[in-house]
Amino acid sequence: MANYKLLISYDGTRYNGWQSQGNTENTIQEKLTAVISSVLSEQIELSGSGRTDAGVHAKGQVASFKTAKCSINCSDKSKKTSEDALNILQKDDFLKKVNTLLPKDIAVLSVEEVPADFHARLSARSKTYLYRINTSAISNVFEHRFMYDYTTPLDIEKMRTAASYLIGTHDFKAFCGNRHIKKSTVRTITSIDISKASSEICIFYTGNGFLMNMVRILTGTLIEVGDGRRTPESIQDTLISLDRDKAGYTAPAQGLTLIEVEY
Amino acid sequence: MANYKLLISYDGTRYNGWQSQGNTENTIQEKLTAVISSVLSEQIELSGSGRTDAGVHAKGQVASFKTAKCSINCSDKSKKTSEDALNILQKDDFLKKVNTLLPKDIAVLSVEEVPADFHARLSARSKTYLYRINTSAISNVFEHRFMYDYTTPLDIEKMRTAASYLIGTHDFKAFCGNRHIKKSTVRTITSIDISKASSEICIFYTGNGFLMNMVRILTGTLIEVGDGRRTPESIQDTLISLDRDKAGYTAPAQGLTLIEVEY
Repeated sequence: MANYKLLISYDGTRYNGWQSQGNTENTIQEKLTAVISSVLSEQIELSGSGRTDAGVHAKGQVASFKTAKCSINCSDKSKKTSEDALNILQKDDFLKKVNTLLPKDIAVLSVEEVPADFHARLSARSKTYLYRINTSAISNVFEHRFMYDYTTPLDIEKMRTAASYLIGTHDFKAFCGNRHIKKSTVRTITSIDISKASSEICIFYTGNGFLMNMVRILTGTLIEVGDGRRTPESIQDTLISLDRDKAGYTAPAQGLTLIEVEY
Repeated sequence: MANYKLLISYDGTRYNGWQSQGNTENTIQEKLTAVISSVLSEQIELSGSGRTDAGVHAKGQVASFKTAKCSINCSDKSKKTSEDALNILQKDDFLKKVNTLLPKDIAVLSVEEVPADFHARLSARSKTYLYRINTSAISNVFEHRFMYDYTTPLDIEKMRTAASYLIGTHDFKAFCGNRHIKKSTVRTITSIDISKASSEICIFYTGNGFLMNMVRILTGTLIEVGDGRRTPESIQDTLISLDRDKAGYTAPAQGLTLIEVEY
């Protein structure tokens, strides 16, 4: 049994998110599972580092799967007990086959064997997300599907002040899309970087984990600070309230991209 | 009567090219004409710098139109005889209105008043096109609609040598998609720059004008040189032959972008 880690990117526009919830089909996980199972001639189970919402994109999503077929996939039979069952050439072959079968908006960038106890979600130490806002009435025709159009002027300095209150370890229940969550809603955000270049605002979030819709609710709240609907200082009360209704709106999925998962 | 020059960008994926040919609808020109006519409450006629094929993109297409409504569109009635009938504020207003009505894959980047004798096509001095080739089996999920996937290895040096024979003033009839063309097929190519970064090859073409499908046929021919199907030197015979059948295949539209039109 070999354990493999995949680095994955996708344009989430056409999909119902990473993972199916209930009867929902057409997920990234479903497409990848079908293609990898077909290439390995074995039904695999793919674990992602976390769910991304419908319409959210990924530059560096990570997923892992175990396969019993390493011996079959070894060109050199003597290597079937090797620590790296898919050697370099086989990895290239695997990537080529998988990417040829995948739709153009999903790609597996790399594959590497990892220790048996590696788990894409449980082993993740931190994640970085990017939220992109187009502040111009003029569409960026080549990248509009990866940005949220918001043309009301935003005060970046106020947004930065608001963001500073979010850094650190807090109970982020007020910023969680699941109001009935039973598990801990305590998370640590290590940085929120807000920059503006030309008419685009980029917000990078890094933390040890994010709750359901959390990055989108944080973004909606920061936007409400930026356009003057709430003060930067109000974020402190929002955090303490643990009340979803006290936070801002959920910014649209299309502006959000999972950039990197660190292990 | 005021004459206006527009700078336009579009993702051509969904469209039947810049201009309708025959009964074909769903063109960029048609969408723009409808929106501008609506904003100005006057049926305008839009002249592009040239046709782009179905599926070809533009970062800097140029078009011009004349309007009798400059006086109506002047906030300051005293300016109705001004040389610049749409003043700065009005231009912003015009751009905002037009871009709000346009689909997200078409944008008007700027508008400026030009002399009455300016014509987007007739006044153009040169054009620059970019053809992008993805040489990896791994899709660039965010930009795949603007690239042509070609995974057979290409010899860039041979392609550069072949390109050198195309520089200058030649009869490019062999590279014209219209076999029955009556007008002159003599054009001047001032530069062809071929570069490779990571798994992407970029070919920039600059010339005083390009025939129907010419950039795509030049690209198909250079690709055939790159993968060894023809020699760099064979390009000279192809040019002299004036025979479309002697040139390479027509590379797909989706890899091509009109970058800039110089006046």
